[in-house]
Amino acid sequence: MSSFSFTVEAECSESWARAGTIHTPHGHIHTPIFMPVGTQATVKSVSPEELREAGAEIILANTYHLMLRPGSQLIADFGGLHSFMHWDGPILTDSGGFQVFSLGHLRKLSEEGVAFKSHLDGSAHLLTPESVMQIEFELGADIILPLDICAEFPCAYGDAKEAMERTHRWAERALAAREKYQSQQTLFGIVQGAFEPELRQQSARFIGNLPFPGLSIGGLSVGEPKEEMWNLLKYVTPELPRDKPRHLLGVGSPEDLVIGVGLGMDMFDCVLPTRVARHGGLFTRYGRINIKSARYRSERGAIEEGCDCYTCRNYSAAYVHHLARTEEQLYYRLGTIHNLRFMLRLVGQLRASIIAGTYSAFRDNFLAQYVPASELVREDQRQKWKAARLQ
Amino acid sequence: MSSFSFTVEAECSESWARAGTIHTPHGHIHTPIFMPVGTQATVKSVSPEELREAGAEIILANTYHLMLRPGSQLIADFGGLHSFMHWDGPILTDSGGFQVFSLGHLRKLSEEGVAFKSHLDGSAHLLTPESVMQIEFELGADIILPLDICAEFPCAYGDAKEAMERTHRWAERALAAREKYQSQQTLFGIVQGAFEPELRQQSARFIGNLPFPGLSIGGLSVGEPKEEMWNLLKYVTPELPRDKPRHLLGVGSPEDLVIGVGLGMDMFDCVLPTRVARHGGLFTRYGRINIKSARYRSERGAIEEGCDCYTCRNYSAAYVHHLARTEEQLYYRLGTIHNLRFMLRLVGQLRASIIAGTYSAFRDNFLAQYVPASELVREDQRQKWKAARLQ
Repeated sequence: MSSFSFTVEAECSESWARAGTIHTPHGHIHTPIFMPVGTQATVKSVSPEELREAGAEIILANTYHLMLRPGSQLIADFGGLHSFMHWDGPILTDSGGFQVFSLGHLRKLSEEGVAFKSHLDGSAHLLTPESVMQIEFELGADIILPLDICAEFPCAYGDAKEAMERTHRWAERALAAREKYQSQQTLFGIVQGAFEPELRQQSARFIGNLPFPGLSIGGLSVGEPKEEMWNLLKYVTPELPRDKPRHLLGVGSPEDLVIGVGLGMDMFDCVLPTRVARHGGLFTRYGRINIKSARYRSERGAIEEGCDCYTCRNYSAAYVHHLARTEEQLYYRLGTIHNLRFMLRLVGQLRASIIAGTYSAFRDNFLAQYVPASELVREDQRQKWKAARLQ
Repeated sequence: MSSFSFTVEAECSESWARAGTIHTPHGHIHTPIFMPVGTQATVKSVSPEELREAGAEIILANTYHLMLRPGSQLIADFGGLHSFMHWDGPILTDSGGFQVFSLGHLRKLSEEGVAFKSHLDGSAHLLTPESVMQIEFELGADIILPLDICAEFPCAYGDAKEAMERTHRWAERALAAREKYQSQQTLFGIVQGAFEPELRQQSARFIGNLPFPGLSIGGLSVGEPKEEMWNLLKYVTPELPRDKPRHLLGVGSPEDLVIGVGLGMDMFDCVLPTRVARHGGLFTRYGRINIKSARYRSERGAIEEGCDCYTCRNYSAAYVHHLARTEEQLYYRLGTIHNLRFMLRLVGQLRASIIAGTYSAFRDNFLAQYVPASELVREDQRQKWKAARLQ
């Protein structure tokens, strides 16, 4: 029934990196891939045509936001997300669980599911493994995720184990519920296990052995040090079946992609590239710059020399600086396009290096040049966004 | 030296409407024309390519905003506005005078010019007829305007006369100052005279007889009833030379264009179509709708059936409604594109009707169908924007 498949075309001999192709009802996805996030059925500030031009092959949309507004039933009435938002490429929807924990009010977790009140109007909702399958069926994405429990960082061992075991039971319930729907959607499994290597191994083995055609690794990049995340992946990847695509949920930055690919990850999604763009942070091969900085006031060159994005092909850094400083709406678009193109060019370069057998050298060169935003800066920004979100 | 010219191609036998073509160093402009406003060297939320696709043939930029940020000298260093903002079509810049009166602080008006403090940082500036020529030379627009004095509504006769006479003296000083600059820019004259028919006639005659290749009518649409504006134009137009294009500054709405054309106006500019779009007000042949209204929540059709804009060709009204309600940035773009296309299609239809000799019928049909936002609603919105601007 499903027209989903995954083929691995090349593997790195010095790492776990691989290049492949995912086939979906809405087209092919070349891996490794970065998925721009379109939370409310739109990738903030850019059009579907601009996403295509930037090289996007699949986007992610958030079930939590869409179930509340405009509602999954309305989107179903419009033929699903693809036709509602005018994007005819592949789409992945998450389960909504992560947002329930980070945005919802008065959450109540039970074996049945998670009850919460909407952050918009306080209305009461219940997500269960079964209702999430219904909602995601209505949204109509190509790849869908089951309800899971994302443990907080840090997390006591007992709590981590309990959350993982419930996630496993919910995975089985989702698979059973999935049977009811005649659709070409593909349900991925989600690996949890918090920050315990042993639980991560156990979860990878358990979820990897269920009949999921793809696997997402959840519960990472939630505040733990980057080193800890990479260390956990070293326990997870070897336990996963080689013939299924692996999705690292909610990750990441340019350097995260470069490193994550070497640890066997095929798919990445994160709001970071689009969100930092809106705050003035634009990627270059040497790291993130702040386009609002006075040094760009009269810069005749593009944001990054040689960049092939629409923004860099047509506008000076000085003009982008002017738009950013005056908070003009065109800025958000031009900045977002640049960062998305940077991420999508990067995954293309990673893929080419894997096929050419030069991934390790590419990674080492990239990391030697690229200075990441420090953990401190990152944490500072995270707190600011948290505060802004609560207003 | 100037490559500016204007030819009238058709005239209406029942009104003062005419169709013509303006030639500028950056291309032709078919009149009547609507000029989208790009205050800060960007028409809010749309790209130059989208302006072209919507049918824009010339845009307006604001000298006041640009002289303060990023500064006219910087724009000159970048080869002028065209290359700075990546728009290769004609551009018109106003003189900055209107904004000094509406936005600047601590204004001091004298025969020399107008001193004011920036609304951004309180820095002190002096605009004179001569300095405005220098600043507009640096900005490099195809059509430039001289410093003038826009009287308030209502206005005592003596004040109106004094402002007009000073505007006339400044017009002569601008013409003299203009001689200094070797450029292909064309300086239009500005007719003033507040709300006094006699002064308006006098100003039209005076300015019309000076060697300006085009004429702008200023000081209207500043709060007076619409009927009063149309009545004043009946005194102005007959006094103006037939062979020069006539620009009605700061006007207007769809119905204003339809009426203004019949009173002999060739060029219009106004923030209204783009501003109301951002607030949810979208134009249709029957009047302005509020896309945020619940009635569009599940509307499968386009904003306006048969509309050929990018938005209506690709998105349901329900999706645009969703984006507007969730305040997504893509909404501002989609709404703006729709309203701009509406205005630019409308001037195309007006032009075609003039050439076909059916302008009067077109006007009457349009006005019979189109229900304008009432004066009360308009005033209410004006107050809201004023309040928002002051924050």
